[in-house]
Amino acid sequence: MSSSSTATAVVPSALRDLYLGWSELMATHELDMRLFRSIFDEWHQPTIEPENVTYKEETVGGVPGIWAFPAGADRSKVLLYTHGGGFAVGSAASHRKLAAHVAKAAGVTAFVLDYRRAPEHPHPAQVDDGVAAFEALLERGVHPEDVTTIGDSAGGNLAIAIPLALKAKGRPLPGHVIAFSPWLDMENRGATLVTNDATDALISVPLLEGMIAGVLGETTSPSAPLANPLYADFTGFPPLYVNAGSVESLVDNAIRVAERAKGAGVDVTLHVAEGQQHVYPFLAGRDADVDAELAAIGQWLRH
Amino acid sequence: MSSSSTATAVVPSALRDLYLGWSELMATHELDMRLFRSIFDEWHQPTIEPENVTYKEETVGGVPGIWAFPAGADRSKVLLYTHGGGFAVGSAASHRKLAAHVAKAAGVTAFVLDYRRAPEHPHPAQVDDGVAAFEALLERGVHPEDVTTIGDSAGGNLAIAIPLALKAKGRPLPGHVIAFSPWLDMENRGATLVTNDATDALISVPLLEGMIAGVLGETTSPSAPLANPLYADFTGFPPLYVNAGSVESLVDNAIRVAERAKGAGVDVTLHVAEGQQHVYPFLAGRDADVDAELAAIGQWLRH
Repeated sequence: MSSSSTATAVVPSALRDLYLGWSELMATHELDMRLFRSIFDEWHQPTIEPENVTYKEETVGGVPGIWAFPAGADRSKVLLYTHGGGFAVGSAASHRKLAAHVAKAAGVTAFVLDYRRAPEHPHPAQVDDGVAAFEALLERGVHPEDVTTIGDSAGGNLAIAIPLALKAKGRPLPGHVIAFSPWLDMENRGATLVTNDATDALISVPLLEGMIAGVLGETTSPSAPLANPLYADFTGFPPLYVNAGSVESLVDNAIRVAERAKGAGVDVTLHVAEGQQHVYPFLAGRDADVDAELAAIGQWLRH
Repeated sequence: MSSSSTATAVVPSALRDLYLGWSELMATHELDMRLFRSIFDEWHQPTIEPENVTYKEETVGGVPGIWAFPAGADRSKVLLYTHGGGFAVGSAASHRKLAAHVAKAAGVTAFVLDYRRAPEHPHPAQVDDGVAAFEALLERGVHPEDVTTIGDSAGGNLAIAIPLALKAKGRPLPGHVIAFSPWLDMENRGATLVTNDATDALISVPLLEGMIAGVLGETTSPSAPLANPLYADFTGFPPLYVNAGSVESLVDNAIRVAERAKGAGVDVTLHVAEGQQHVYPFLAGRDADVDAELAAIGQWLRH
């Protein structure tokens, strides 16, 4: 594992600029959920259109979404992508390009889920949708080991929770799991919420509080393992790739889940990118370091 | 020419639902230009991802944009697409899918411009960007007659104004021009602003007033022919395809420009779609009538 213990400078980027703009909007406007959803659909903006990828909308296991088909991709292999946005905002559209970049780097396809969002649909609706899509892929003849559950932020939580839910049911598991800046701690703790508050351009404790209330609803405990995988048993979990930016408030979520999974014997790769913000893979096509990491993830998936 | 004189019922659609949602937002929130831009980037939502199309970002003639390459398209032919949004909102991203559907129907490529927007950049910045991109395509070896200027709403105005500007300079003209629900009348007149006010789910006179002030700025007259092509001389203009929805407030802009161009001897095709809203081609992939019209436009471009 690499370490985030070295203090580093913030890396200026189109993603950081976008987050600073959103933070300014949140500070100066009365934004309700409708407007939050509009603004967070701008999340695609820092990501360059990946070349030589086609798309197709479909409903898989009752869950709508967007397929990304890179030219020459192995169509027997699928990244099942769950987007970020606090379980409440973001969409397949906002994450189409990001998922396509990862799929292209890995030489496989991606299906980006438009899972049911909170607060209209609290936990476990999002996990259930991911499980339903996974099972539907298997019914179509996809081998479980050829599926990777992958997501960012709240969707990184889901990418981990979906295999945990499958494991609890005794069902086959995906071959790999990838979580970009996963947001896991529904108790809203963690040292970097404080120590990185000044350098994180987007995440704040009050913002997370609102999202937690929305997804947990009236009945789910903030320590329920499928809502907060920091409490989960990772025995038998697939190889796990986790990353986060060193200056983001949620970096310790990545570090903590990596440690917990490693303690259960899981093959874990943790990458903390110096100076980067929350879900910095959104800089795909624009930042050579990000593209190099996606290439390395492609290699990791192949071996 | 078909006619819009028959009173018709409003066609419910995902586009109308989106517009009603925006109208509700505008009525209940203080929306500044920043939020308007966020909301109008949702314009892509009614359009289904077209299959078998790849994309590439590029800057052409100094103007950034997104190429759409349908599989098997004739890469020597280009739809130069100027997006709608009152010259102030909308983007290449919001119109990528729409432009790709038209390109696919015609078997050609499309380049969707992110031209400079008002009010930061008033008229003629938008026309200048379109002209620059057109000239750059010619420098790359594209034949002028193989370019179609095409756009919707304010971008339909630009699709007409760009050839008018080229004509004024004595430069080669595009082979065809397509305007979906063009917004032309910068004097903000026209009977259907009143008669269709109740059935149009988006457009209102005050909304247009704000957009007009932004694009005209301090120096441009609302009857300047390159800002308001209803005052232009269409002699020698390329074949023109214009459409609009019968229940939209701007339908008479389409009818008036068709009449004016026809009076100058231009080969004009006008289609008024019964019951449809502003820029109803956004329903591509979702509405069989729209797909049939795009197929007909593809045939019209080939002949």
